[in-house]
Amino acid sequence: MTLLFHSASDDARAWTAELNRRLPDLEVRVTPDIGDPADITCALVWKPPPGLLAGLPNLRLILSLGAGVEPLLEDPTLPDVPLVRMVAAGLAEDMAGYVTMEVLRWQRHADAYAAQQRAGQWRQLPHRPAAEVRVGLLGLGELGAAAARALVALGFPVAGWSRTPRTLPGVTALHGPDGLATLLAGSDMLVCLLPLTPETRDILNRNTFAALPRGAVVINAGRGGHLVEEDLLAALESGHIAGASLDVFREEPLPAAHPLFGHPLVHLTPHVAGVTHPGPCADHVADTIRRHRAGDPLPNLVDRRRGY
Amino acid sequence: MTLLFHSASDDARAWTAELNRRLPDLEVRVTPDIGDPADITCALVWKPPPGLLAGLPNLRLILSLGAGVEPLLEDPTLPDVPLVRMVAAGLAEDMAGYVTMEVLRWQRHADAYAAQQRAGQWRQLPHRPAAEVRVGLLGLGELGAAAARALVALGFPVAGWSRTPRTLPGVTALHGPDGLATLLAGSDMLVCLLPLTPETRDILNRNTFAALPRGAVVINAGRGGHLVEEDLLAALESGHIAGASLDVFREEPLPAAHPLFGHPLVHLTPHVAGVTHPGPCADHVADTIRRHRAGDPLPNLVDRRRGY
Repeated sequence: MTLLFHSASDDARAWTAELNRRLPDLEVRVTPDIGDPADITCALVWKPPPGLLAGLPNLRLILSLGAGVEPLLEDPTLPDVPLVRMVAAGLAEDMAGYVTMEVLRWQRHADAYAAQQRAGQWRQLPHRPAAEVRVGLLGLGELGAAAARALVALGFPVAGWSRTPRTLPGVTALHGPDGLATLLAGSDMLVCLLPLTPETRDILNRNTFAALPRGAVVINAGRGGHLVEEDLLAALESGHIAGASLDVFREEPLPAAHPLFGHPLVHLTPHVAGVTHPGPCADHVADTIRRHRAGDPLPNLVDRRRGY
Repeated sequence: MTLLFHSASDDARAWTAELNRRLPDLEVRVTPDIGDPADITCALVWKPPPGLLAGLPNLRLILSLGAGVEPLLEDPTLPDVPLVRMVAAGLAEDMAGYVTMEVLRWQRHADAYAAQQRAGQWRQLPHRPAAEVRVGLLGLGELGAAAARALVALGFPVAGWSRTPRTLPGVTALHGPDGLATLLAGSDMLVCLLPLTPETRDILNRNTFAALPRGAVVINAGRGGHLVEEDLLAALESGHIAGASLDVFREEPLPAAHPLFGHPLVHLTPHVAGVTHPGPCADHVADTIRRHRAGDPLPNLVDRRRGY
């Protein structure tokens, strides 16, 4: 069996080694060294150039290296074979770590203390206890559930909103348009972990911000397409939004001259909130390939109409 | 019943209101307005001047406003009545939040990303997944247990060391001198949450640092007396220790000229890692007073020989 690997941001050598350790008979070919396209039956990819996969006549399975598959779905030539998104304990935990770190940094005045340290100042700044900082999660899938677990363990009241009704221990679960309004009105920190679909595009906009309590914080670890960046800048300017943590942007890399880059109320990271590490993720990929070979049902299949 | 309140760093007015809401018949007197010392049967205090409590002839109960009681035990005139330490869900969760935030900041290169943001740079810096960052907790009491819960939820392998054997779900529990050596050898991040006793004073010293893997991080949220500050400075200088988060110091406020203050590898906060918020803590205090009145056994009694 031959697998094609393509990614500009993942370590092809590490992935090849991890996969061969689990599936010694798997041949991994890394772009651009594809060899005979007819050999390839399976592809493990992140943002492949449009048409790359359509050029593989015997492709039977596509595995995404990212949790979000919208770059793949935007390719009209994408072959109609099973498409599996990346789901691994390591990814959800990594994202949960980012969300938890950002919630805590805003709760506990981390920037102000860093500034005081630079200035040689010792001054205690009261912070609200976790029990009084309400966190609202947009998205309650694997990523949202992992973030909720950590935040609940730290004593934060957590509410979550999802397309379809869900139940999570210790989490106020909401859904639908009314649920969204309820969530926003009661979120001191709003965290976006949604997949990007036509329904969720631009969901972080001026109306959303206006529905949050004054002084709320916005954390976007979903996709750049979720956030209307100029609306956020206006809400920060007005003081209605007190701060934002942004890991994803409309344009990546974000141009250095972009007003979000140097903004004093923004924590900016270069799309590293949820990183797929070859180790734990290779388990997921190898397991999916084994099931596919055996003809077993595949978990984490993408529903192309739904978009995730 | 009359309670004496003394603290230079807690909000006397907020505490009085919270206690009266729970115990309407409790009279709260705040230093220096003590009135007749013979009225006072109970004291709620943080760092009272030596002799203050000895001057209360009818004192029957001392409640500490802090989790650590060593400032009280250093007063040789401390009356021999039941002494209860502060234990409240809010305090343990607050401390767990500090520990979790610092572990995540070091794991995820938060300082480097902040510097890149200031410089307009977009560059991904690989970080180790949580599953590969071993956290060692010194102290597995209420505070250690709360920190462990959050860190385990985020996927960090957690080991803990305590004076007496303990068991915590998902935590490798160690004790005794051999256990300490095992913990140190396997800790990429070492977190001190111990009470300060003659046995634990100076426990964070050059030998301890040398027993950690190269590149380890030290987080001290215990007491200033746990850390030999000059040994830490030397270990940071040599590169053996990669960074430190310090919330407590030998001398507080830490003088602005102290070499730890401006150190680029140190996160400094002014003793705010575990703050007692009147709300949840007042529940604990009111409950203790009710039990005391009823003659019921008191939880969280300090063992004066042990020191906590």
